[in-house]
Amino acid sequence: MIDQRLLPRREVYRVLRTYEQVARAIETMVVRGAPAIGVSAAFGIALGARKAADPTSRSTFERMCRRLAATRPTAVNLFWAIARMRRAFESSRARGPEAVREALLREALAIQEEDIAANLAIGRHGAPLLPRTGLVLTHCNAGALATAGYGTALGVIRTAYERHPTFEVVVTETRPFLQGARLTAWELRKDRIPTTLVVDSAAGLLMRQGRIRCVIVGTDRTAANGDVANKIGTYTLAVLAREHGIPFYVAAPLSSVDFECETGRDIPIEERDPQEVTRFADRPVAPDGIRVENPAFDVTPHELVTAIVTERGVARPPFRTSLRRLLRAERERPRLRARAGAR
Amino acid sequence: MIDQRLLPRREVYRVLRTYEQVARAIETMVVRGAPAIGVSAAFGIALGARKAADPTSRSTFERMCRRLAATRPTAVNLFWAIARMRRAFESSRARGPEAVREALLREALAIQEEDIAANLAIGRHGAPLLPRTGLVLTHCNAGALATAGYGTALGVIRTAYERHPTFEVVVTETRPFLQGARLTAWELRKDRIPTTLVVDSAAGLLMRQGRIRCVIVGTDRTAANGDVANKIGTYTLAVLAREHGIPFYVAAPLSSVDFECETGRDIPIEERDPQEVTRFADRPVAPDGIRVENPAFDVTPHELVTAIVTERGVARPPFRTSLRRLLRAERERPRLRARAGAR
Repeated sequence: MIDQRLLPRREVYRVLRTYEQVARAIETMVVRGAPAIGVSAAFGIALGARKAADPTSRSTFERMCRRLAATRPTAVNLFWAIARMRRAFESSRARGPEAVREALLREALAIQEEDIAANLAIGRHGAPLLPRTGLVLTHCNAGALATAGYGTALGVIRTAYERHPTFEVVVTETRPFLQGARLTAWELRKDRIPTTLVVDSAAGLLMRQGRIRCVIVGTDRTAANGDVANKIGTYTLAVLAREHGIPFYVAAPLSSVDFECETGRDIPIEERDPQEVTRFADRPVAPDGIRVENPAFDVTPHELVTAIVTERGVARPPFRTSLRRLLRAERERPRLRARAGAR
Repeated sequence: MIDQRLLPRREVYRVLRTYEQVARAIETMVVRGAPAIGVSAAFGIALGARKAADPTSRSTFERMCRRLAATRPTAVNLFWAIARMRRAFESSRARGPEAVREALLREALAIQEEDIAANLAIGRHGAPLLPRTGLVLTHCNAGALATAGYGTALGVIRTAYERHPTFEVVVTETRPFLQGARLTAWELRKDRIPTTLVVDSAAGLLMRQGRIRCVIVGTDRTAANGDVANKIGTYTLAVLAREHGIPFYVAAPLSSVDFECETGRDIPIEERDPQEVTRFADRPVAPDGIRVENPAFDVTPHELVTAIVTERGVARPPFRTSLRRLLRAERERPRLRARAGAR
C-alpha cells in the first residue's frame, strides 16, 4: 500500500506480509480513512491465514481479529470488515485449511471490489447535489486514498466535475495530520480539479463571504439516527454551514453506518498522540510538557446534516428511517444475486 | 526585541538599529500582535529620527511613517501610533533637531508605558467576567508578546487567575503561524496557569462537551460598531460560542478601536504568503503549485460579541454608543492631568 504519511513529497509503496504489519500500518496511519482501514484489515486477516500453521484454528483467527480490531476505535468499517471475514471463516472452516485461506482471500477481494463499486454509486447519487458554480468545501480526505478507490466525498466531487467542470473545490488543511493539504489537495490536483487550500479556521470567513455553496465530507461512523462521526473539525463546519444556510452533505457507504449505534453518543472517539500536535517534522512547535488534547474525531448531530449519500441512494431526514430503508434495499441485493446464480 | 518566530524553541533577542530594520521585523513577524506592532513602529520612528541627518525634515519623517505604515494593513494600532508620533514631531519641529529626537523618544516611551498600564487596567476590568471553574478558551496570542507587556486577553486571564486560580485555559494552536501553540502556551506555562493545547478545529467539540465557559480574544482592529477584526478563526469561534450559549469577550485597548471605521466591512484584511500554509520548517506539506488563500484575519460581527473589555471599562452592546462613551472618558484624562499639573 502507498505510505500516506509521506505524501505529497514522496510516493512510496509498502509491501506488508503479515497481519501484524497491517495492524501497525493502520495504527501509524500508513493507511487511514474508514473504508480503506476496513479493506486493509480484511487483507490483513487473509494474509494471516495464509501464514498460519493451522488457519482453521478459531483461537488463531480470533487473535488476528482482536489485534486488528484494537488498532483504531472509531471507524466502524474496521469492525464491519472483521465481522464479514469471520463469517467467511466460519462458513469455510469445516472444509479445511485451503478452503479457509481461499474463502478469506475471496472475501477480502470482494470487500475491496464492493467498496469501489459503492464509491462509484455514491458519486452517481451525490453528483446532482453539487452546485454548477461556486465553491464546494471538503475536509480531511475522503478520496481514493481513504477507500479502495475513487473515494466517497471526493467520489461525489469527481462525478459532478465530470458532468459539469464549472465549480471549484476548497479543502481545509485538516490539522493535525494534514490530510486535506497532503492527500486531498494531491488527489484533486492529479485530477486537474481546481482546488484552493486554506487553514481549517478560514472556513468561517469563506462562508461569510458567501462563496461556499455546499460542504461534503466522509464519515468514520454514522449512527442509526444520522449522527456523523468524522475527522475533528467536521462538527465546526456543520455549525458554520447551518449558520450560513449552506447544505451539509455526508458521503457514506452503508458499511460506515453503524445501525447498532443508536446515536453519536455511543461512538467512541479516538484520542491520538499529543506529539501529532506538539511536533512537526520532529521539530517542537509547542513548549515542553504542555498538556494536549488530540481527539481525532468529533460527532456532528443529525440535525445539522442535510443529506447522507450512500451507494443505494440519498438519505434525507429523518435518517433513522431513511437509512434503514436503504439498508434493507442493500440486503435484498445479495439475495437477488444468489437467486440469479441458482438459476 | 525577542524573535517570536523562534519561540518556544529558542529565546533570541534581536537588536534593531534603524527604522528599516523595525519595518522588516514587523513584516516578517519577528514581532506581531497589534499593540506590540504599534509600540515597535513608534520606536522605529524614534530610532529613525536619531539616525537622520535632519530629523526636522518633514519629508524624511513622512518617508519613515510611510515605510512603517506599509508593513501590515490590519492592526490599527500601527496607524494610531504613527499618528501620535506625527503629532509629537509637529509640535517639537520648530524647536530643532534635538527637541524632535527627544520628543519622539519620549512619545515612544509613553506609548509603551501607557500600553502596559492599559493592559493592567483591562485585566482588572475583565477579570470579573471569567468563570471560577471550568475552561476559558483563547485563540492566537494576545499576551505579553503581543503588547508592550502583560497582554490584553492574557492580561484578563492573568488577573483573574491571581484572584481565583481555579479555572484552566484552553488555547487553540492557531494555524498557520501557530501563535497559540508557540507563544500563548509558552507564556501561560511560564506563569504556571494550567493550559491545554488543541488544534483549532477541536474548539467545537470542546464546546459541545460543555467544558468551555467563555472565550476571550484580542483584536487587531475593532470598528466603531463593535465588529472585531482578529486572527483568522476568531469568527468561527464566535459562531460556535453563540451556538453553545457561551459568552464571547474581546480584550481591546482603545488604541485598537478604529472609530473612523464604521463597520467591519471597512477593515482591510491582510492576505499573507501561501508558504505559511504549504511549507512547514521548510518542508512542503502540500502538493507543488496548489492554490492557497491565506487570510490572516477575519471579522466577527458585533452581534456575536458579548462584551469588549477596554482599559476604561467593559463595553456592552450597543457598542457604537458604549465604546464612544469610554473613548470620551479616556480623552478627559489627559485634560484632567494637564489641569492638575497647572495648579
